[in-house]
Amino acid sequence: MGILHGATVFVIMSLMTPVHSVLPGNPRVIDMTHTFDENTIYWPTLRQFKRTGVLRNYTADGTWREESDIEGAEHGGTHLDAPAHFSKNKWRSHDIPVERLMGPAAVVDVSPKAAADADYLVTAEDFQLWEEKHGKIPDGCLLFIKTGWGKFWPDELLYLGTNTRNTSLLHFPGLHPDGARWLVQNRGMHAVGIDTASIDYGQSTVYEAHQALFGNNIPVFENVANLDQLPAVGSVVFALPMKIGGGSGGPARIVGFVNKHEYSPPHVDL
Amino acid sequence: MGILHGATVFVIMSLMTPVHSVLPGNPRVIDMTHTFDENTIYWPTLRQFKRTGVLRNYTADGTWREESDIEGAEHGGTHLDAPAHFSKNKWRSHDIPVERLMGPAAVVDVSPKAAADADYLVTAEDFQLWEEKHGKIPDGCLLFIKTGWGKFWPDELLYLGTNTRNTSLLHFPGLHPDGARWLVQNRGMHAVGIDTASIDYGQSTVYEAHQALFGNNIPVFENVANLDQLPAVGSVVFALPMKIGGGSGGPARIVGFVNKHEYSPPHVDL
Ligand SMILES: [Zn+2]
Ligand SMILES: [Zn+2]
Repeated sequence: MGILHGATVFVIMSLMTPVHSVLPGNPRVIDMTHTFDENTIYWPTLRQFKRTGVLRNYTADGTWREESDIEGAEHGGTHLDAPAHFSKNKWRSHDIPVERLMGPAAVVDVSPKAAADADYLVTAEDFQLWEEKHGKIPDGCLLFIKTGWGKFWPDELLYLGTNTRNTSLLHFPGLHPDGARWLVQNRGMHAVGIDTASIDYGQSTVYEAHQALFGNNIPVFENVANLDQLPAVGSVVFALPMKIGGGSGGPARIVGFVNKHEYSPPHVDL
Repeated sequence: MGILHGATVFVIMSLMTPVHSVLPGNPRVIDMTHTFDENTIYWPTLRQFKRTGVLRNYTADGTWREESDIEGAEHGGTHLDAPAHFSKNKWRSHDIPVERLMGPAAVVDVSPKAAADADYLVTAEDFQLWEEKHGKIPDGCLLFIKTGWGKFWPDELLYLGTNTRNTSLLHFPGLHPDGARWLVQNRGMHAVGIDTASIDYGQSTVYEAHQALFGNNIPVFENVANLDQLPAVGSVVFALPMKIGGGSGGPARIVGFVNKHEYSPPHVDL
């Protein structure tokens, strides 16, 4: 934490209209967030998301009014896992410095392997193969693991492997505990994200990848959307969670900035 | 909406460590978000925020676990007001394009006037006076009104004027309906933010400033924190709300980027 990792300067072009852009580099803004609604996938054993409409009508004074209440677990939809979720005395949601929630994105695509094995575990070798092509995983980056599972959202049976609350039936890929340990021992990413419901694979019962990352105060983002719209390198991501005091995680809004010339087309299964 | 407003390029420097920076421009990242906890101020008549701890202990397998559920109205703490909140068929929370939730910040400081009058209403003249000093309110900006009320957070009596649920006792400054109409007719900001509980002043009963902005699909951010750490111009802000399907607003995480040489010290009451 006291070590200076070096520095990188990123040029973010702010679009001046929601639809058009005449900016240098012609960047696109990617909303990497699933909408929170009645179809949002939450961890099966936890309180699901619910929006309760309070008003949606004209009031007595003739003006329109809409208001809702919301409720749910911290762990559902596109969300933060704070290190305290699995590691005592580490950062809770409100403790994480905002600087740790942003950075250049490194996107490691293991979707061909995961397509062949729903229980695929991402290894240190996967990261090393990525680095041979794209250079070292940058210090201060947000490291995203692209399993391809995002395309199953919001179908629970395909995305989780089950639409029951029986967690022994969960099947989706994840980060191998050894891969997580290699990352924290050798690389300086700000956070790790994945396009599945958990950084540990569905069949995990002890969540060792969570523990390796959280023991080193590395936050995690789960159920990240639209990873197929990011290039392996060259984009910048802001992953901003709700600032819950004492929280173990929480809903997050994640946005990525991509220069069109750096955009790589989504992986297509044939 | 079809009009191109022009373009601006912003240089965002990503800090590589949470504590240190050796970056050109030496930027600071400002967390413009109040923490959501038992002291968080919500609109008095609405469901207040509650985090219910589910786990905070070692589990049977010897690993640490923390988890909570959260609940509350959409309108409390640092939050988005979506245009649909007061304007039929306008954008709900999930409808707002992410590009509209970011931009250069224009900070209009009316805190001396508000300090002298808790019911102060910000007028078109206040914006025109600001423009004489700082130039035209930029197209695509996030326009923040700094009343100075942020310093009262989280003391309900000082911040809202009452710690009861009697809304006739609310006293805090806001945007004059004529000021809101002048903005939407003459300027092209992406959104408007304020460091009070509502863009309309406490004594409002018909919320005309909300209606003027929302009728033109201009989102609003309320209970914005740390506005005193932003300069009048020169910073860039990302205001990212929870993506609630069908929502009228919701919790937001707001971050600002300030170059130290552009930092103006907070207003001091003598
Ligand atoms: Zn989680
Ligand atoms: Zn509101």
